[in-house]
Amino acid sequence: MATIGPDILRDFARRLLVAAGVNREDAWELAEALVWTDLIGRRGQGVSRLPVYLKRFRQGCIQTGDHPKIIQRRDAVATLDGRDGFGHLAGCAGMNLALELAAQYGVGLVAVRCSNHFGAAAYYVNQAAEHNMLGMAFSNAGARVAAHGGLTPLFGTNPFAFAAPMRSQRPLLIDFSTGVSAMSSLRMMLATGKQVPDEMFVNTRGEPVKNQSELDSGVMKPFGGTRGYCLALMVEILSAVLTRSALSRDIAKLGSDFSRPANVGHMFIAVAIEHLLPLNDYFTLVEELAGFIRSSATLPGVESVLLPGDSRWKQFEHTSENGIALDSHIRLALESLASELGVATPW
Amino acid sequence: MATIGPDILRDFARRLLVAAGVNREDAWELAEALVWTDLIGRRGQGVSRLPVYLKRFRQGCIQTGDHPKIIQRRDAVATLDGRDGFGHLAGCAGMNLALELAAQYGVGLVAVRCSNHFGAAAYYVNQAAEHNMLGMAFSNAGARVAAHGGLTPLFGTNPFAFAAPMRSQRPLLIDFSTGVSAMSSLRMMLATGKQVPDEMFVNTRGEPVKNQSELDSGVMKPFGGTRGYCLALMVEILSAVLTRSALSRDIAKLGSDFSRPANVGHMFIAVAIEHLLPLNDYFTLVEELAGFIRSSATLPGVESVLLPGDSRWKQFEHTSENGIALDSHIRLALESLASELGVATPW
Repeated sequence: MATIGPDILRDFARRLLVAAGVNREDAWELAEALVWTDLIGRRGQGVSRLPVYLKRFRQGCIQTGDHPKIIQRRDAVATLDGRDGFGHLAGCAGMNLALELAAQYGVGLVAVRCSNHFGAAAYYVNQAAEHNMLGMAFSNAGARVAAHGGLTPLFGTNPFAFAAPMRSQRPLLIDFSTGVSAMSSLRMMLATGKQVPDEMFVNTRGEPVKNQSELDSGVMKPFGGTRGYCLALMVEILSAVLTRSALSRDIAKLGSDFSRPANVGHMFIAVAIEHLLPLNDYFTLVEELAGFIRSSATLPGVESVLLPGDSRWKQFEHTSENGIALDSHIRLALESLASELGVATPW
Repeated sequence: MATIGPDILRDFARRLLVAAGVNREDAWELAEALVWTDLIGRRGQGVSRLPVYLKRFRQGCIQTGDHPKIIQRRDAVATLDGRDGFGHLAGCAGMNLALELAAQYGVGLVAVRCSNHFGAAAYYVNQAAEHNMLGMAFSNAGARVAAHGGLTPLFGTNPFAFAAPMRSQRPLLIDFSTGVSAMSSLRMMLATGKQVPDEMFVNTRGEPVKNQSELDSGVMKPFGGTRGYCLALMVEILSAVLTRSALSRDIAKLGSDFSRPANVGHMFIAVAIEHLLPLNDYFTLVEELAGFIRSSATLPGVESVLLPGDSRWKQFEHTSENGIALDSHIRLALESLASELGVATPW
């Protein structure tokens, strides 16, 4: 499979966005976020999302050119209105403001409302780490996941993300769904003739799903039973209740409800390490901890213990040098979008 | 099994502590925390811990009478020195200070060092909810849990706790170990002739454990594979690195290393809801969310979907009215302690 260089892919994404009518500045920022996400190997959250984002944009569900607006700022906390713009822009504005508040107060907390799908939460917490701060990011999303024991979709896959900077290596990067799996992995299981275990996903009667249409109407289970449910609920309170955004169950679904803005909510928390201890001491301690983890004895069959983010950063190095391999279905979808918008395809 | 009223049990715990030489004020606060923990049904973290706490105290590993001391306070964050006192006192002081900072800045973060085992993290986050704030609490502990894929104990069961207040019902109460299980449950499995699955716990060669001694030397797995590992590591960074306490691997084990202070670290975060939205709006939204959860359709065989904390609060109502049923081995241990200290047993 031929690969495409990140600069070329970023430029292509910008041209698609601008051709569709997206404000130039918005297009730059969104393309940056999407290609970073492809670079770390999260293809499902990268440029593959452009067709659905642009469909929402062209249907009027996503706005452009209105900067996220601070609607309340009081001491170390603030609320930001995403003004129905691209979620990545509200996400960046939210984390940036959290970093600014943390620089001033030691900790900053920013609630974001009226936003959209913001892609990989890792992108925002990594920004915190780049500023030598700890970052946390949470978001809700269209309902997919039931409570423990339940059969009603109540939560999105509500991501939980955390990053911590390191002195001489890439940040520790944690970003996981509180649902048991990505929908795309479940679709792949069915497509390749595998059974989707009913501990992961069930149809509306609580039985194993047999086909794609049952995947669309069924419910995902939270990961790890009650603990995943607890985290999904915590993320929902932080992202929807504190922000006064829509609950996950009321969010317009990304790929199927183009009748209205999504009203997704996010929450960003930044901690200024230097308010607590000298950065140098922090780095010494956290790298000592990382060293103990890396030199851990391993289970039979396990080669080495990794730190969260290790395999993402390895991908990042590799794709930065060798380019990004896009699956043919992603290429085809982008080619069709390019042709529709009169944009030249770079491959 | 006869039960014992909470007032009588609290008084008994105080008398034991004072007879052992614990400062009166410390004894009051510690007994309060322990009996609350028994009331919500967490027997493993309640008065059953008195013998080991007092053994540590009498060996000089735990101090009394020195109040936790603020060693750094800067804007919305602070560091507290527990001065090797009982963990519950440092925990209460930490959460109280976080609440005070949150009242002033909207969010407050308190790192606690030189502390001891603080029992159930739920106790501290519940205090935040009682003040109409969101609370989070984290702690490290003597190493028991390996990294994902690892065989070296690197983390304690590092609890993750969160609470959110409700208008007309008990708070949402989340408190879970990032290890796959409580050690006490694993001991019970072996004692009753059950196998401990190797997805939960393995001996030092990575094989299933066969007896109690292998349980003492083996390693627990994090819950939910990589996700539990990520959370355990996040808790370790917040509780040990940011506080400059001991890493879990260097903590003196609660029940087996009486040669030195434990140097446990905790982290407390409080969020003043009113800094973000009117409390009344918050209550309306969170109770709407709770209502959707409670009225969720259920999986076959599941009677109803519970909120986190529901069964704990149900226990609380029951034990508050009918008294606390202590297992005979807990009674015996307390009787022996009482006789040693010349304290009358109330049953």
